[in-house]
Amino acid sequence: MRAVAIRTDENEPAVIEKPRPDPAEGEALVRTLRVGVDGTDREVIAGGHGGPPEGDDHLVLGHEAVGIVEDTNGTALAEGDVVVPTVRRPPNGTNAYFERGEADMAPEGEYVERGIAGDHGFAAEYFTSPEEFLVPIPEDQADLGFLIEPISITEKAVQHAFAARSAFTWEPESALVLGNGCLGLVTLAMCDHVYGFERTYCLGRRDRPDPTIDLIESLGATYVDSRETPVLAVPSVHEPMDFVYEATGYAPHAFQTIEALAPNGVGALLGVPSSWEFEVDGGALHEEFVLQNKALVGSVNSGVTHFEAASDSLASLPDGFLSDLVTGIYGLDEIEAAFASDDTTIKTALEFST
Amino acid sequence: MRAVAIRTDENEPAVIEKPRPDPAEGEALVRTLRVGVDGTDREVIAGGHGGPPEGDDHLVLGHEAVGIVEDTNGTALAEGDVVVPTVRRPPNGTNAYFERGEADMAPEGEYVERGIAGDHGFAAEYFTSPEEFLVPIPEDQADLGFLIEPISITEKAVQHAFAARSAFTWEPESALVLGNGCLGLVTLAMCDHVYGFERTYCLGRRDRPDPTIDLIESLGATYVDSRETPVLAVPSVHEPMDFVYEATGYAPHAFQTIEALAPNGVGALLGVPSSWEFEVDGGALHEEFVLQNKALVGSVNSGVTHFEAASDSLASLPDGFLSDLVTGIYGLDEIEAAFASDDTTIKTALEFST
Repeated sequence: MRAVAIRTDENEPAVIEKPRPDPAEGEALVRTLRVGVDGTDREVIAGGHGGPPEGDDHLVLGHEAVGIVEDTNGTALAEGDVVVPTVRRPPNGTNAYFERGEADMAPEGEYVERGIAGDHGFAAEYFTSPEEFLVPIPEDQADLGFLIEPISITEKAVQHAFAARSAFTWEPESALVLGNGCLGLVTLAMCDHVYGFERTYCLGRRDRPDPTIDLIESLGATYVDSRETPVLAVPSVHEPMDFVYEATGYAPHAFQTIEALAPNGVGALLGVPSSWEFEVDGGALHEEFVLQNKALVGSVNSGVTHFEAASDSLASLPDGFLSDLVTGIYGLDEIEAAFASDDTTIKTALEFST
Repeated sequence: MRAVAIRTDENEPAVIEKPRPDPAEGEALVRTLRVGVDGTDREVIAGGHGGPPEGDDHLVLGHEAVGIVEDTNGTALAEGDVVVPTVRRPPNGTNAYFERGEADMAPEGEYVERGIAGDHGFAAEYFTSPEEFLVPIPEDQADLGFLIEPISITEKAVQHAFAARSAFTWEPESALVLGNGCLGLVTLAMCDHVYGFERTYCLGRRDRPDPTIDLIESLGATYVDSRETPVLAVPSVHEPMDFVYEATGYAPHAFQTIEALAPNGVGALLGVPSSWEFEVDGGALHEEFVLQNKALVGSVNSGVTHFEAASDSLASLPDGFLSDLVTGIYGLDEIEAAFASDDTTIKTALEFST
């Protein structure tokens, strides 16, 4: 079968031939429909993150997949079920985090990530997976099911952030999303259509005309150009935010989030920057944090319950928004285009079968 | 009656004469037993925080009080009830935060603080308070009831911190308290005797012999000398911490807390530093925060439910610990000693009656 992989000595993905996998006991065989492409894939390709399974010279890419069960192999799944696989797997047998369905909370060393670090991904015509990591979704989500993994990332982050405000009466009205990539835009749409925020804002640094600004405004949200209104100015120019969702990976945003928050607000940090020293007014941030009861929650990955919630959320998002969000679906003869990124690209996916 | 106050043009507290207050409707008259002294009092005295009610030239000090109901004035309290007053009051009538019993979550402008900012405190022979802000406690806590306010500060911070970990299975074992003042030591004892941590640590910067180090070790906790083992070195020298409680007000600790935490850990920030710019490796902190699902919660003040929990916690703390913690009870002829602070002072209180 064909697979899309990055070889350790190359810096562009390629279509390679691999044997079609045989499902082991407890695993089903899935025929891949589509696999989404995101920033993590580009980091993996660039060699900045993750890598192949030990001893392998290539990593099959892809962690945002949707497929159809082709061989149930004795599992409780049914042939033809549309499924989305979760990303983390236990490295050796299992461990407590996986046993209680909280692989997303496993610390380093207790997981590998399919298509990212230590295990091959889903960007192949077929993949196998233990049944417990395959989340059935409605058939009508077969086309856009590759969005469920990124949406699940937000479900978890929001669940954790809101939990941090569960010890008191918290009635958030305003939300600011930092970042207008696919994850930021989807989260903005969820703030409007799933989480019920009354006023939503999305920060980017693009000139009009721009498809992401159009999408932001189509949701009724306010576009904040960070070149005119930096995060620190958002409270005075717009309003202090009950919720801030950081999806830029721009490290100063993690700290500026504290000042963008309203009293009793919470920030969810999702971006993964690298080491970068800079100056902060640590005293003022600390004081602000304490005297105004603020909270910050870091969040990575997601589990089965978040995938299930994500399927429900996907069903709540406007069709027009989703069709504008997905800017390209590419076959295996167009993988360069699938992985390319420019100002007209929001979300792309590879198509393996229909 | 006599009261201990700070005059706006002076920098030492003094005993002054004030008329004994008459309880208004809904208020009880309380005869004060003891009033604890803490770092906030010293900041107020030094002019660094808070101030008198508008138009007054002095502020009656004291926000950690215990007293006996002398005149129920038609409230549901009984004469002789031992009570502890909460600190915040609504500035004008009431507001939503007070109405739902969450004054501790009120933003600036929506509260005054008795003995701290905008309202006279409890360091007087008598005080009045609306019934709803008087928390009855067992009679045998009359002597140490002045510790209930500081304990309640920890109850709230821990409630919020643990709430931030409520979206997954969190079984914390290790706790690090930053700061060996009264609040730090009481929190350390609560980590051992109330919250059930298996291994506890307390960070200070004192040489032996020292009464706080003795207290730390009497609890079975480990003393961490920050001059030998800075916060950043705690994970390698001791272990990464599931819970960090910051009670130093030393701004770099707020950021170092992130690195001292174990994966999935939470830090509670309590200290109130002032503006202070310094360099942080913001990128590394941000990454650590996200990839290891960490959380930080700022917390200030506390409400009636936290005072109630604090009374229960006080009952759980070892008698020997409490008697060593309280290093002095002073009459009104010794107020200089009551407000003094040196390496032999841990917790002091003023005694108004017995």
